[in-house]
Amino acid sequence: MTELSGRTNVDEVINREETVWGPFAEAVRQLVDACVTSAAEDDAVRDALGDVRSALSRIGETRHEKTFGLTYGPVGRRRQWGNPVIGLRNPIAPPLLPEFAHETRSVTSDFHCGPAYEGPPGLVHGGIVSLILDQMLGHAANAAPPRAMTGTLTVVYHRGTPLGDLRAEAWLEREQGLKKWARGRVIGPDGVTAEAEGVFITPRDARSRRADVTGR
Amino acid sequence: MTELSGRTNVDEVINREETVWGPFAEAVRQLVDACVTSAAEDDAVRDALGDVRSALSRIGETRHEKTFGLTYGPVGRRRQWGNPVIGLRNPIAPPLLPEFAHETRSVTSDFHCGPAYEGPPGLVHGGIVSLILDQMLGHAANAAPPRAMTGTLTVVYHRGTPLGDLRAEAWLEREQGLKKWARGRVIGPDGVTAEAEGVFITPRDARSRRADVTGR
Repeated sequence: MTELSGRTNVDEVINREETVWGPFAEAVRQLVDACVTSAAEDDAVRDALGDVRSALSRIGETRHEKTFGLTYGPVGRRRQWGNPVIGLRNPIAPPLLPEFAHETRSVTSDFHCGPAYEGPPGLVHGGIVSLILDQMLGHAANAAPPRAMTGTLTVVYHRGTPLGDLRAEAWLEREQGLKKWARGRVIGPDGVTAEAEGVFITPRDARSRRADVTGR
Repeated sequence: MTELSGRTNVDEVINREETVWGPFAEAVRQLVDACVTSAAEDDAVRDALGDVRSALSRIGETRHEKTFGLTYGPVGRRRQWGNPVIGLRNPIAPPLLPEFAHETRSVTSDFHCGPAYEGPPGLVHGGIVSLILDQMLGHAANAAPPRAMTGTLTVVYHRGTPLGDLRAEAWLEREQGLKKWARGRVIGPDGVTAEAEGVFITPRDARSRRADVTGR
């Protein structure tokens, strides 16, 4: 009974943190977007800078000593909150919300890339495409133990990926010994824009540990 | 004389925009960092959310119709302001400040990756490493015309890239017809962490145009 309520309390704390930090990160995402698209007058930007500094003074003074990755175990719900692709608390992340099909060890996610992700005119930066594919292939590789990290990632760009609504898919192709091979792709309104293959390797120190089923 | 002063006026406008938007984007970068590291109380986060919404209302109502990439020509100083790796106005960008050595067609940049770029615990996300390498290899490939876009990018991860101060290097290896091969690497305090090779291809519509000497 004590353990159960202990677990419940942890969940309550995490749920409360989510309702506080989720909307904040989302507002900062909108601010990032405004930063690259705004046509505001200089004075408005200077006033907005005052607002941002005010926000910083409110939340910037007390910091966690360690990152989410170093604080929470691999299966902790908070572990991924700082992740730059899927992180609830990371305004850099679009974010993606990967959906797993454990029976096929595959993962999919619809997502949106606005102007802050632009590389060539009107297109998603090729490196952002590779960032998203690395994350998705990592999910596919780590849907089951042992945990593995990217060894080699190869991305083939078939055409430009337009800014806007997109989809990413990845799946585990095969595994042998300490290596796993995963594949994936990004799909735009006109079809597949880029494909990736990744070789994932289980680091020596993780070979006896539980796999990171929530990702990378 | 008219042309000269016209040019000067454009430079003045761009310089002024830089002094207004540069500090604003930098403050938003700090806010992104605080978002993933803050240990502030819930009430402080809610008050900070009010500040962020105030900033949004000041700069979010008037927007440019087009992205920087679609607005400015390839050699325009503002063209890269939205870039997620080097963009002055993009809080997603660390940012890198690539330095060119045109005689060797190579490019280097010292940069810093904080907790917002974390993948595995304490390490830079492998996809962020590929994002930075794609940008740097693109600079090396596009140091001289014709402009080329990433066709294939292969990243080999030798070890984890620790969060903190890092360096990226890239250079043009060879070119043939409409293809260019570039290589590069990321260097941490203990040496090279990842290497990349990229094949860059000149799109049909750019074959007669001036190269994008400022990047991608």
